[in-house]
Amino acid sequence: MSTLTSREWRLKLRPIGMPSHDSFELATAEIAAPGDGEVQVRNHWLSVDPYMRGRMMDRESYVPPFQIGAALEGGAVGEVIASNDPGFAPGDMVNSMAGWREAYVAKPADVMMQKLPAAGLPPQAFLGVAGMPGLTAYGGLLRIGQPKEGETVFVSGAAGAVGSIVCQIAKIKGCTVIGSAGGADKCAWLESIGVDKTIDYKAVGGGQALTDALKAAAPKGIDVYFDNVGGDHLVAALDAARVGARFPICGMISGYNATTPEPGPWNIISVIPKRIRIEGFIVTDMADMMPDFIRDMASWIGAGQLKYEETVNEGVETTLDAFLGLFKGGNTGKMLVKLV
Amino acid sequence: MSTLTSREWRLKLRPIGMPSHDSFELATAEIAAPGDGEVQVRNHWLSVDPYMRGRMMDRESYVPPFQIGAALEGGAVGEVIASNDPGFAPGDMVNSMAGWREAYVAKPADVMMQKLPAAGLPPQAFLGVAGMPGLTAYGGLLRIGQPKEGETVFVSGAAGAVGSIVCQIAKIKGCTVIGSAGGADKCAWLESIGVDKTIDYKAVGGGQALTDALKAAAPKGIDVYFDNVGGDHLVAALDAARVGARFPICGMISGYNATTPEPGPWNIISVIPKRIRIEGFIVTDMADMMPDFIRDMASWIGAGQLKYEETVNEGVETTLDAFLGLFKGGNTGKMLVKLV
Repeated sequence: MSTLTSREWRLKLRPIGMPSHDSFELATAEIAAPGDGEVQVRNHWLSVDPYMRGRMMDRESYVPPFQIGAALEGGAVGEVIASNDPGFAPGDMVNSMAGWREAYVAKPADVMMQKLPAAGLPPQAFLGVAGMPGLTAYGGLLRIGQPKEGETVFVSGAAGAVGSIVCQIAKIKGCTVIGSAGGADKCAWLESIGVDKTIDYKAVGGGQALTDALKAAAPKGIDVYFDNVGGDHLVAALDAARVGARFPICGMISGYNATTPEPGPWNIISVIPKRIRIEGFIVTDMADMMPDFIRDMASWIGAGQLKYEETVNEGVETTLDAFLGLFKGGNTGKMLVKLV
Repeated sequence: MSTLTSREWRLKLRPIGMPSHDSFELATAEIAAPGDGEVQVRNHWLSVDPYMRGRMMDRESYVPPFQIGAALEGGAVGEVIASNDPGFAPGDMVNSMAGWREAYVAKPADVMMQKLPAAGLPPQAFLGVAGMPGLTAYGGLLRIGQPKEGETVFVSGAAGAVGSIVCQIAKIKGCTVIGSAGGADKCAWLESIGVDKTIDYKAVGGGQALTDALKAAAPKGIDVYFDNVGGDHLVAALDAARVGARFPICGMISGYNATTPEPGPWNIISVIPKRIRIEGFIVTDMADMMPDFIRDMASWIGAGQLKYEETVNEGVETTLDAFLGLFKGGNTGKMLVKLV
């Protein structure tokens, strides 16, 4: 057993507004051979996800904030190099929260380390379609959105890691699906995976134009709105909602870098006459759905009913730009960094 | 059988902003003897309710708008004078939607006429505690709010017809109850009926001061927010909510007379980390709860566990001012007009 050299991204300052390179540094660490009960891992794939922006702020939330001077954290898939834990052997492929770095040594429980299930999927799929974003889509849509055959489902951030899976599960469930994404290329891709109608919100613009575009796409209204974006998209969805609509609120990326709060939805009063249910959720609440999720996803992917796209950066040094790209619409499907 | 002379309030113009007398007129109509299948009724009590403001606007909603030149409608309790319907006999006390007038003749189904149940309550109770506002409180709190023993329930508009019943049902269910109302008198009354803590929002002010007052009253946070008010109250409730909170949205009276939309809740993103469920409802959705509701209310009132207050105007000519008073905090408990 020997040490490994690892480059890792650390938080230098808490960013205000849209983060820049000034708030981060790429440092080098020596990763010791594993001590008692520890496992040493070389990461192959890193995940960047919008929720990480929240952890850069010093506030109480469902996950603790990142610490100044410490390495950032996030989903990662890697290979066990050396192990003093009987549950892990060299060569095992593992999922953990020890991302933003090339290698690490830790007790498995401290980094939520798990062996990848044997589901016939490539390892990086467990950071996307078969991992946290996939379960977010599956649990949020099915448990909270409760789509019924023949209903209309509207998805914002539809070309993202979560949104693109929501769209396809809704299609599998027999719904008409409307997806909003930024740019003609993303909209064309969404149509290629079966989305019925797309809205290029960058071309349409916000405010009433977005509402008008949604109402044109869904003349009878929408029954489910899966929200990844917030802001004008939520306003449009409230306006287009039918009686009894369900709104699983997964994310509101339009506000994550705001320095003053985004205005709330001025038409929230619509929830009364339309009996709308708006419900926020966190993927960890859906942990009990994991067995059904892995089974269904493996089946749907195997049958060609569900496709997934990845946007891949290469090298740990590109991780920060991959993360920043999330807020500029830089990704179609899951944004990943390939290390090995 | 003979005709009756009836004064009735008609809509002259659709009001913009806070309504004034200019938009209404008090007219006199001759009420014919009942034709085939018709019933002639003299009203004893009229109800005025905040939702009526919405029906003064020409827009699609869950109830059709009032028509210009026609009498307004609303809950009323009266006595059958003459009947050509075998289901109703002279002397019967009936509930209907033919309010804002002294008398009427109609087919029962056209005005939702029903005989008052024999529940040992005075007739006007069927416009309040045992009628639409009571069922709104009962169904909204129990079905959507789902309060559990030991939880904390926050109610805005707590001294109103709906809010004051919500507060007391929440107490009966073993909750800590915080009520917001305008003025020291209303707060004192709420405390006299068992509300644990009150917030005089007129004294406190809005914005962050209201949030601070709520957090001081509920240092561990709130589990249920029953919303009658919207605006700053909804913002404060989002800020004070605990994980898993439920928000039955009954009304948003703070915005009913706004000429430009009130700002939406800027902190709506809180629904995600706190997994809050916001759900609008309409009392007619709760019709299936009516038998349980009448049974429970009669039992709680009989046992002295639930008290109700009425603010009573006298004479049909005072109906408009009673209605306008709802938006100025003119009522404690149910606002009624007594005719006979």
